[in-house]
Amino acid sequence: MTAARLTHVDDRGAARMVDVSAKDVTVRTATATGMLRVVPEVVALLRGQGLPKGDALAVARVAGIMGAKRTPDLVPLCHPIAISGVTVELDVRDDGVVIMATVRTADRTGVEMEALTAVAVAGLTLHDMVKAVDPAAELTGVRVIAKTGGRSGDWHADPPPDAGSAE
Amino acid sequence: MTAARLTHVDDRGAARMVDVSAKDVTVRTATATGMLRVVPEVVALLRGQGLPKGDALAVARVAGIMGAKRTPDLVPLCHPIAISGVTVELDVRDDGVVIMATVRTADRTGVEMEALTAVAVAGLTLHDMVKAVDPAAELTGVRVIAKTGGRSGDWHADPPPDAGSAE
Amino acid sequence: MTAARLTHVDDRGAARMVDVSAKDVTVRTATATGMLRVVPEVVALLRGQGLPKGDALAVARVAGIMGAKRTPDLVPLCHPIAISGVTVELDVRDDGVVIMATVRTADRTGVEMEALTAVAVAGLTLHDMVKAVDPAAELTGVRVIAKTGGRSGDWHADPPPDAGSAE
Amino acid sequence: MTAARLTHVDDRGAARMVDVSAKDVTVRTATATGMLRVVPEVVALLRGQGLPKGDALAVARVAGIMGAKRTPDLVPLCHPIAISGVTVELDVRDDGVVIMATVRTADRTGVEMEALTAVAVAGLTLHDMVKAVDPAAELTGVRVIAKTGGRSGDWHADPPPDAGSAE
Amino acid sequence: MTAARLTHVDDRGAARMVDVSAKDVTVRTATATGMLRVVPEVVALLRGQGLPKGDALAVARVAGIMGAKRTPDLVPLCHPIAISGVTVELDVRDDGVVIMATVRTADRTGVEMEALTAVAVAGLTLHDMVKAVDPAAELTGVRVIAKTGGRSGDWHADPPPDAGSAE
Amino acid sequence: MTAARLTHVDDRGAARMVDVSAKDVTVRTATATGMLRVVPEVVALLRGQGLPKGDALAVARVAGIMGAKRTPDLVPLCHPIAISGVTVELDVRDDGVVIMATVRTADRTGVEMEALTAVAVAGLTLHDMVKAVDPAAELTGVRVIAKTGGRSGDWHADPPPDAGSAE
Repeated sequence: MTAARLTHVDDRGAARMVDVSAKDVTVRTATATGMLRVVPEVVALLRGQGLPKGDALAVARVAGIMGAKRTPDLVPLCHPIAISGVTVELDVRDDGVVIMATVRTADRTGVEMEALTAVAVAGLTLHDMVKAVDPAAELTGVRVIAKTGGRSGDWHADPPPDAGSAE
Repeated sequence: MTAARLTHVDDRGAARMVDVSAKDVTVRTATATGMLRVVPEVVALLRGQGLPKGDALAVARVAGIMGAKRTPDLVPLCHPIAISGVTVELDVRDDGVVIMATVRTADRTGVEMEALTAVAVAGLTLHDMVKAVDPAAELTGVRVIAKTGGRSGDWHADPPPDAGSAE
Repeated sequence: MTAARLTHVDDRGAARMVDVSAKDVTVRTATATGMLRVVPEVVALLRGQGLPKGDALAVARVAGIMGAKRTPDLVPLCHPIAISGVTVELDVRDDGVVIMATVRTADRTGVEMEALTAVAVAGLTLHDMVKAVDPAAELTGVRVIAKTGGRSGDWHADPPPDAGSAE
Repeated sequence: MTAARLTHVDDRGAARMVDVSAKDVTVRTATATGMLRVVPEVVALLRGQGLPKGDALAVARVAGIMGAKRTPDLVPLCHPIAISGVTVELDVRDDGVVIMATVRTADRTGVEMEALTAVAVAGLTLHDMVKAVDPAAELTGVRVIAKTGGRSGDWHADPPPDAGSAE
Repeated sequence: MTAARLTHVDDRGAARMVDVSAKDVTVRTATATGMLRVVPEVVALLRGQGLPKGDALAVARVAGIMGAKRTPDLVPLCHPIAISGVTVELDVRDDGVVIMATVRTADRTGVEMEALTAVAVAGLTLHDMVKAVDPAAELTGVRVIAKTGGRSGDWHADPPPDAGSAE
Repeated sequence: MTAARLTHVDDRGAARMVDVSAKDVTVRTATATGMLRVVPEVVALLRGQGLPKGDALAVARVAGIMGAKRTPDLVPLCHPIAISGVTVELDVRDDGVVIMATVRTADRTGVEMEALTAVAVAGLTLHDMVKAVDPAAELTGVRVIAKTGGRSGDWHADPPPDAGSAE
């Protein structure tokens, strides 16, 4: 554990935004996933059985994309970053909705936090829309599954992610 | 399932912000919880073993409180609300950090989304600070455990939450 | 013209946010409309002829709703207001998309600006999505067509609005 | 119409922020225009006849400049962009105020949306200041009139814009 | 010092947003002041000697008003509040610009922070506009000079403020 | 005074965001300082005498870092900038808290305003936390003390700053 430390605090423990001005501008990507577990009744509603499912999934997708852009407003020590692309995919399964977000940039630092924020905000937005039917809905498994680019190179979660065929 | 529907979409499926102007201004609270699972090395760093733990937990707590205030900016169909109090508690355990947020208001609608957003943003902020050591950290179990006030009355998750003694 | 003046500037011409603390908290509504004029090719795409129209209208609707909430951040002398409901309707016609937004509040001042902002932001969002096909798309006729509540009472545009049957 | 499609939705219709990481960083500009039509009484007030016109036009100009910076917060699928310059010109005419905004950047995508947003927000701000005198004021003709730079090259509206000699 | 404590941290030192849901909705005001000290050359420019002073003071005034609305976004433990009126006055003197802001609300907590933020943001904005001429400009004396309303009653700074006749 | 002018207004006095697209992307830094003067009772509380000082300084530090990122939202004519690092240091002295912020970027314009905003927001945040004990606390001496990089080269305040050994 000798080398390990929390990079966002200095020797005295003070929080800081770490300087990245000397890092290269390169293309970087990150993919994060998560799941909102809901009761079958909600799954049926999201699948449009009996009633128009309408905008529900689109609202969550848009919220996730916009959430990625708000990351530096939300996460105090994150750098403002020039996001160059975001996709948010939603896969309605029998026990919930799997969310997968991929963010791209050409900048000096990675976009893991942007991808995680997109997943979290899409999940919160789904929660908001289903909470009248399922107040116990649970957002779970929010994590990075892969990233590419930057000095630390490519990384993927182990075991390899099985995020299925998202919508 | 006859009565169940997604309240945030109208008969044709169009998203909308539901009108609450006729609801009473009453005191309402909501408590949400969640956990960031991390490797033991991170737990040791957050407990300040060997190095000053410093501001890490305070940063996450502040981010959660500020996140609660940003809820209507993030969740598209949420009402802007007069939040009147927020607490965010963090409990460092052997396998991660338990996050618990309570939000109070005196307004026309509940604050479940504000409490959930506080938990999610505090969790994302912790993730940001530990990701260099534990890139596979996972935010999990983000859910409402209790709410009070409003027309629908008090509600708590079943089984009763065991969120332990948060910091 | 004796009584007429710009209420947002004082006797010396200095901008100010007019004090409304003495006004009553009452239910107020405002409806605004506008239209994005586009070429027939865009109309066909928005109607989903040949390709999935997908999320396009939902994205604009969500943007309009969120835009209403951002009004006091955008319009300098607007009061922050407790919006209690927003609907944004989109009607795809042969020569463009008619946008109609209704905003409700229970507060001390009216919501005309919130309704107008919802229309403008929904229109800008549509413009963004169609500009590769129709760079000359034009947002036009953005105006208030009706308002209710408040000391000045109900008002509607003359001649009565003919906004048709929006989607 | 074979090639035409809405670039902001994928093959299945899902909204996305299109990836621009492979595009070049080049200088790009866009100019947009629009007009707030108002009654003669408002024109007289804005020209300062009898009373100090004061800050009204300056407030609208500042709001437009700030609005350009808020574009990615408002328009869901817009990229955050490094705006490098903004001008907003206001020309008080006998039947209203012509608004013209020019935005410059050195980035990977164009700034048409930023210029349009500047015009729309300046127009909304003027509307807010005159609505007590002219509740039927109308924002109209919001469109791009010219853009330069980028892969698609220079473009200007046809017929050539006649925006007159703005203030 | 027995009773004194920092109200924004709990018994264990954790930051929190203090609950105000039990406080009354009453009219409250706060006035704050401050000064940007600048070199005489800047004073001459702001007075418009030789060149049009133009929008400079209006820009600062608008920025201060908008800054008051952003207070809960900036100051982590501040409550979001329904601001009902803001004035920002600027008085160009021989050694700088005196800034005075008054904020009103009808809400559950005071508006000292909103008044202070208005002064600080107006001062920063002036600094931005004069920094090419006077890089050593200094914002000083930012403090509350009076407040009214609320349980703690009226308060004014001692000795009584002498903010002069602001513009 | 022949050459001196306010760069943020054009020949007619209209505010504008000055075009920087032709400036080079270089590493630039700025350091600003300021002080919140408080009564000895507050100093004792911040030093944790008798009670846990807790998160107070960390909250101010985080607020300052986040404030730096909000600069273009607050200061109307500031460019949005890719901040690449921020530190905020707080030094509790017998008569107040000295705040020192350093901001780094690799962009086309300097970061003086970001450093000043970090100091101001940290100072406002401290003020918020101590105002129940010391309503007359005063933020003073907010100024730039050094900057490096860019066409105008390095600059430091004269006499050299004596900001002491901040926490």
